[in-house]
Amino acid sequence: MEKIRRNERMSAMMKILSDSPNRIFTLSYFCDLFGAAKSTMSEDIDILRDVVKQFGLGELETVTGASGGVRYRCGVSREEGRRFITELCESLSGTQRVLPGGFLYYSDILSNPDTVRRMGDLIATEYAHAAPDFVLTMETKGIPVAFSTASSLGVPLVIARRSSKVYEGPAVNINYVSGSKGNIETMSLSRRSVREGQRALIVDDFLKGGGTAKGMCDMMHEFGVTVVGMAFVMATAKPEKKRVTGEKSLMILDVIGEDMETASVTPAPWLMD
Amino acid sequence: MEKIRRNERMSAMMKILSDSPNRIFTLSYFCDLFGAAKSTMSEDIDILRDVVKQFGLGELETVTGASGGVRYRCGVSREEGRRFITELCESLSGTQRVLPGGFLYYSDILSNPDTVRRMGDLIATEYAHAAPDFVLTMETKGIPVAFSTASSLGVPLVIARRSSKVYEGPAVNINYVSGSKGNIETMSLSRRSVREGQRALIVDDFLKGGGTAKGMCDMMHEFGVTVVGMAFVMATAKPEKKRVTGEKSLMILDVIGEDMETASVTPAPWLMD
Repeated sequence: MEKIRRNERMSAMMKILSDSPNRIFTLSYFCDLFGAAKSTMSEDIDILRDVVKQFGLGELETVTGASGGVRYRCGVSREEGRRFITELCESLSGTQRVLPGGFLYYSDILSNPDTVRRMGDLIATEYAHAAPDFVLTMETKGIPVAFSTASSLGVPLVIARRSSKVYEGPAVNINYVSGSKGNIETMSLSRRSVREGQRALIVDDFLKGGGTAKGMCDMMHEFGVTVVGMAFVMATAKPEKKRVTGEKSLMILDVIGEDMETASVTPAPWLMD
Repeated sequence: MEKIRRNERMSAMMKILSDSPNRIFTLSYFCDLFGAAKSTMSEDIDILRDVVKQFGLGELETVTGASGGVRYRCGVSREEGRRFITELCESLSGTQRVLPGGFLYYSDILSNPDTVRRMGDLIATEYAHAAPDFVLTMETKGIPVAFSTASSLGVPLVIARRSSKVYEGPAVNINYVSGSKGNIETMSLSRRSVREGQRALIVDDFLKGGGTAKGMCDMMHEFGVTVVGMAFVMATAKPEKKRVTGEKSLMILDVIGEDMETASVTPAPWLMD
């Protein structure tokens, strides 16, 4: 095999590591791939760790011990997160996107890969320390962001449904009070999707009264799962009191004006700390 | 600024380019970022192009002209795609995952980030030449794979719903015949999500009779959009004749045995060519 140079090894390693966040790659894996000595690979990794840090591309972590190696973790600095969300808020504010009834159209934002990836990275950075085993969302609009968060954390996504489906197998159904209308709604989750004792991170697109979020918490309780955090793309300014607490939203929506025709979207306070 | 070495520049560039597939980055962008001359950056890119190719990590393409630069495209070799899908088929075959009625449980596969990313890369590789403007899916289970395909192609995802929602704005509703049951169902798509003259790639999790797929094609026709391709994670062996043609599925499902208790999942024929 032709000798592979350091710049070639490092570039390939960067791509392989960042494609599978949180997955531990052994030194031997890279030694075999590149036909290089362990000492050489260690040096490569040391340099790569600094590159990742210097350019704000995340974090490389060395894991010691028998099953040790190196893993990539996404990491968005508070400053970068704030800049990204502030720009997003500006593009969503105004009259253009307000629909009858004071609703905001932002489905396009929720399925734009670049935006969604950055939102996922931001939420993952915030909750990586909580070590969730999976990300939970309720269909439909929040799925891309929840999936992106799960990708960045390197854990599976679990999707709660509005009704049980034949192809999901035995399921747990619960009823919950929809925050916005006070209606009783149903939420269904396949029994196979989650195990007792796991840790869940709830991610969804929208938080108004918090009924659906509360329903997801209740569902996790039924499964014996601990909810380690909750993140939402958008929360409404009103009602101020939600049915859940401790959540982190990225943006706060207030629809103002006599005829509810103007959206004021601002970054959530915790981002500005 | 301290001088940045080639291995550092190349590693950072790899991450930045592959994070935004299909997006053209100008040479000047990287010159500014690294404080390097254009000739140096050109050399970096030439080496990086070979690395990406050598390790099967995709493709770097140089775009000439006024708005020129360099862009990353994912690229999965037929051999790698075949190996990946063959392994997946093996893990899905057998009696473990078969549900009453001959349904197969594979929701966990459809939301496992690593698996979904690879499926998305594979579908994107297959349809990149068709230059879709967006990926279309029908809620719910196919969303992660469709989103992953959209990410790999660097285009938005558009999600058709079962009913129109207040927060989606004006919508086009169509009726279609559900392939499996022959029921009349409704599909709704926000008017804002798509523009006339665009090109759509349809991606979904499951193809049985093809009713939903046909519905999506009809919907695109209503919008004056051309369907440039259709990809499904799983297609059933029966009925052999679907309501759509020209689709590419990754796997073929046949549920066999006296009591319909064994799943036989095989890679789709086109993958084996």
